[in-house]
Amino acid sequence: MSKQVDLISGLAVIEAARKHAEKIGVPMNIAVVDSGANLVAFRMDGPWLGSIDIAQDKAFTARAFHPPTIELAKMSQPGEPLFGINASNDGRVVLFGGGIPLKCDDRVIGAVGGSGGRPDQDHDVARAGVAAFDAGGKTGH
Amino acid sequence: MSKQVDLISGLAVIEAARKHAEKIGVPMNIAVVDSGANLVAFRMDGPWLGSIDIAQDKAFTARAFHPPTIELAKMSQPGEPLFGINASNDGRVVLFGGGIPLKCDDRVIGAVGGSGGRPDQDHDVARAGVAAFDAGGKTGH
Amino acid sequence: MSKQVDLISGLAVIEAARKHAEKIGVPMNIAVVDSGANLVAFRMDGPWLGSIDIAQDKAFTARAFHPPTIELAKMSQPGEPLFGINASNDGRVVLFGGGIPLKCDDRVIGAVGGSGGRPDQDHDVARAGVAAFDAGGKTGH
Amino acid sequence: MSKQVDLISGLAVIEAARKHAEKIGVPMNIAVVDSGANLVAFRMDGPWLGSIDIAQDKAFTARAFHPPTIELAKMSQPGEPLFGINASNDGRVVLFGGGIPLKCDDRVIGAVGGSGGRPDQDHDVARAGVAAFDAGGKTGH
Repeated sequence: MSKQVDLISGLAVIEAARKHAEKIGVPMNIAVVDSGANLVAFRMDGPWLGSIDIAQDKAFTARAFHPPTIELAKMSQPGEPLFGINASNDGRVVLFGGGIPLKCDDRVIGAVGGSGGRPDQDHDVARAGVAAFDAGGKTGH
Repeated sequence: MSKQVDLISGLAVIEAARKHAEKIGVPMNIAVVDSGANLVAFRMDGPWLGSIDIAQDKAFTARAFHPPTIELAKMSQPGEPLFGINASNDGRVVLFGGGIPLKCDDRVIGAVGGSGGRPDQDHDVARAGVAAFDAGGKTGH
Repeated sequence: MSKQVDLISGLAVIEAARKHAEKIGVPMNIAVVDSGANLVAFRMDGPWLGSIDIAQDKAFTARAFHPPTIELAKMSQPGEPLFGINASNDGRVVLFGGGIPLKCDDRVIGAVGGSGGRPDQDHDVARAGVAAFDAGGKTGH
Repeated sequence: MSKQVDLISGLAVIEAARKHAEKIGVPMNIAVVDSGANLVAFRMDGPWLGSIDIAQDKAFTARAFHPPTIELAKMSQPGEPLFGINASNDGRVVLFGGGIPLKCDDRVIGAVGGSGGRPDQDHDVARAGVAAFDAGGKTGH
């Protein structure tokens, strides 16, 4: 029985992420993508217009490359093995925290991206979404 | 006191549109944009991957040009005054029903786009979202 | 037990399509995408440089909207309900024959696109790929 | 009698690269481009969705600038002469190992790109493809 990132589970991820954002007092834009990296759900609550794009791109990045973006950032510094990766995939690769993959049995099947605060806050908000997904019932919701 | 398309009113628009989609039995992707044509909220429920983009672009089109896209479609046929308009704005202009502006005192302040059924069904779903917005309270929600 | 469009089944689709192209004497570019509309396999054999892009976009279109592109073409003529759809999805929507969805139990799970001949020839080549996929074993290969 | 990167030689390159990837146990996406930097053949076997694009872009980069991308990476670090080159060519320039040009008499006539492992693994896989190309018969295949 395999979990899926679909509308129902996607909205649950967003709701959990949103609650954490509320708790830390940082409004966020939050995006969820499915296994094909396609947008499943999105809500704008952040103050930065530019973050509408970045939240979605963080989710894309985590789905496309697997490490949380906060880790990918380290691998992509000057001198590191993935330096320059952000020029790929039509500029949709984001190199700061806030994108985390959603997994089922260690297989990446989607991702969540949060954008609106500091990278570590964005990461924590996304992590709250991931936790809700992982706690989801046996049917994948 | 002016109405706004923000997260709260946007989610109400999506919820009303979703209910109509459910009533007519046609799952839809639904997008809401604000006065700057920026995505406020989105939910994917439609069967067509290509509609993720189109729902957002219908909302953009209605915000950007004001007539519902079902009307813009007529003005953009061969021989009509706006023929070719869909090549503008980086290909974000959609020429079939499903995008409708959200207004306050006849001023366009956002838009809703639905995509997943026939253009007339998409239009009706978007109209249900607009009706909810228009019925919103005096504070704009 | 569900079929998947993956490397193994994708290469089988391409091989079957290629054989048909050879039989009718029309070299083709052939692309296969998976359920997320991502490229799984591609081979260039056509004489037209511009068809490298079109073969991939035909596969995308069939995955994104479900009707074979030869059918979508009819729905997208001036005056028809989907006129203008080719401006959506960043210009990746192709409106002539050659793209056909790959299905499992009536669910679209990928697509094949052929480009190099006349639209009806491209359609026939893609159909040969689909037939091979449908004839694939119970494990999806 | 000049060698060419065409469908036949391209598939041979991919097959040799794939075999090396199999030997080191790292599934890869592998792309081959011709002298015009156009995609000749592609196969997806890697775990990263984002690598579909990067494999093709590595091949593009090696064809477009000639040094293997593992060398170009060094020239493009902060303070080095080509710093920032990855912003050019619509973001198709990749700055880590895995792209290597295909040559005939020291003339670059195509390239191969591999993506799916560490940059040095990707480079080795691409090199296996180049070796097969160089060992190709007198007719260019």
